Amino acid sequence: MEKLFIVKIGGHVIDDESKLNSFLNSFAKIEGRKILIHGGGKMATRVAEAMNVPQEMIEGRRITNAETLKVVTMVYAGYINKNIVAKLQSRQCNSIGLTGADANLISAQKRIHPSIEYGFVGDIDSVNSDFIKTILENNTSIVVAPLTHDGQGSLLNTNADTIAQEIAKAMCPDFDVSLIYCFEKEGLLMDANDDQTIITQVDKNKFADLKAKGIIAAGMIPKMDNAFAARDAGVQQVRIGNAERLGDLVEGKAGTGISE
Amino acid sequence: MEKLFIVKIGGHVIDDESKLNSFLNSFAKIEGRKILIHGGGKMATRVAEAMNVPQEMIEGRRITNAETLKVVTMVYAGYINKNIVAKLQSRQCNSIGLTGADANLISAQKRIHPSIEYGFVGDIDSVNSDFIKTILENNTSIVVAPLTHDGQGSLLNTNADTIAQEIAKAMCPDFDVSLIYCFEKEGLLMDANDDQTIITQVDKNKFADLKAKGIIAAGMIPKMDNAFAARDAGVQQVRIGNAERLGDLVEGKAGTGISE
Repeated sequence: MEKLFIVKIGGHVIDDESKLNSFLNSFAKIEGRKILIHGGGKMATRVAEAMNVPQEMIEGRRITNAETLKVVTMVYAGYINKNIVAKLQSRQCNSIGLTGADANLISAQKRIHPSIEYGFVGDIDSVNSDFIKTILENNTSIVVAPLTHDGQGSLLNTNADTIAQEIAKAMCPDFDVSLIYCFEKEGLLMDANDDQTIITQVDKNKFADLKAKGIIAAGMIPKMDNAFAARDAGVQQVRIGNAERLGDLVEGKAGTGISE
Repeated sequence: MEKLFIVKIGGHVIDDESKLNSFLNSFAKIEGRKILIHGGGKMATRVAEAMNVPQEMIEGRRITNAETLKVVTMVYAGYINKNIVAKLQSRQCNSIGLTGADANLISAQKRIHPSIEYGFVGDIDSVNSDFIKTILENNTSIVVAPLTHDGQGSLLNTNADTIAQEIAKAMCPDFDVSLIYCFEKEGLLMDANDDQTIITQVDKNKFADLKAKGIIAAGMIPKMDNAFAARDAGVQQVRIGNAERLGDLVEGKAGTGISE
């Protein structure tokens, strides 16, 4: 099967122009099929403040009322997504920027929670893998903004890590998929403050053991859960590591590899 | 040849939710291949004001400095484009929202003017008709935001009427193209304040004559010039009329038809 690299970047790369440029240099150099999923970053918060849209976070999640949805649609699907695409074009990496609404790429439903009103937040139902295949086979990379839609006219703010996982799962019957989660650390660390303590390979048992011993930083747990879920669903390779070392991550020479 | 409808809407439709919904109902009902090009509307000005980005207009054109480019990218490519796509999806019209940077759809260069510094404003070089064809043949309509790119990493603010004309020209070797410019009047009028005075068909000689007699409203002249340029370049049908009557415009039963 043909290789497909699915790379997720978060706000720490997006918010830093020089890190973003250097990351995009590496992304453009990946040979073959590739998809980039980007998160939001601080710009949404800045634009919301400038527009007097108060922001509410519950357990690290942005509550997305109608006004906030407007802001994140502008920032994620507009500013961030299109600037990444324009920058990739200048690096001879032909690409197209999409949300889940475009070509019905990712359909979702509004999250219903017994006690928290998340607002316009989406839980993914399905990924249009046929369309993704059509675009990739047209030698065009895809840049995905973290928005989905409900099929009833509403966009929905959706976690970028989850989008990456769902796209990877949907594509693995057709491609040999490598899912790479980029963040600001070298990988899963024994000591969160020391990049030298990287664990190069981790499976569920080892992770459960490390978690039980209180070694895993709290912020890492949802990331790792997402990574294991992707492996469980058949994604061939899952790796987590530093966005600044994308070239090495692609070759399996950096970061933490995730085993079942 | 297969029919292709290329429809342009401006701010008066975009700024009015109920007009937009009704327009999109009609657009979704057009059978066969179709492309929608949208302009900006007042929202860019409102967002710019909220974000304290001063707006400068010269001869009706927005001067696009770096901060204004950020605003129009957010509003045109983000908010307006993605909401139109989500609304079309809910109307069973599968569609994809693109700027000129996506898939290198429209490459342009920054306008150089001897005396006016327009900023990040693009003059179109070429349209990627192959990619448009690929998407249309995938039974997906295209929604185009008025932004192009320079191939060097910059997005460029670009006139939506001109984008519509250039796409129409690029597609007419492959399709039987109908280019429809929608606005708030019934068409070209003998009396700008009386929709009953519509001219149902106009050619260049008649238009020159009406212009010489001072009958044409000043704001109509660039619109008509664009329409004639499209006909000159081989676009099979060009029509100008009221967005509220899209169904009739598509059938040639409303608006003003443009002859060579």
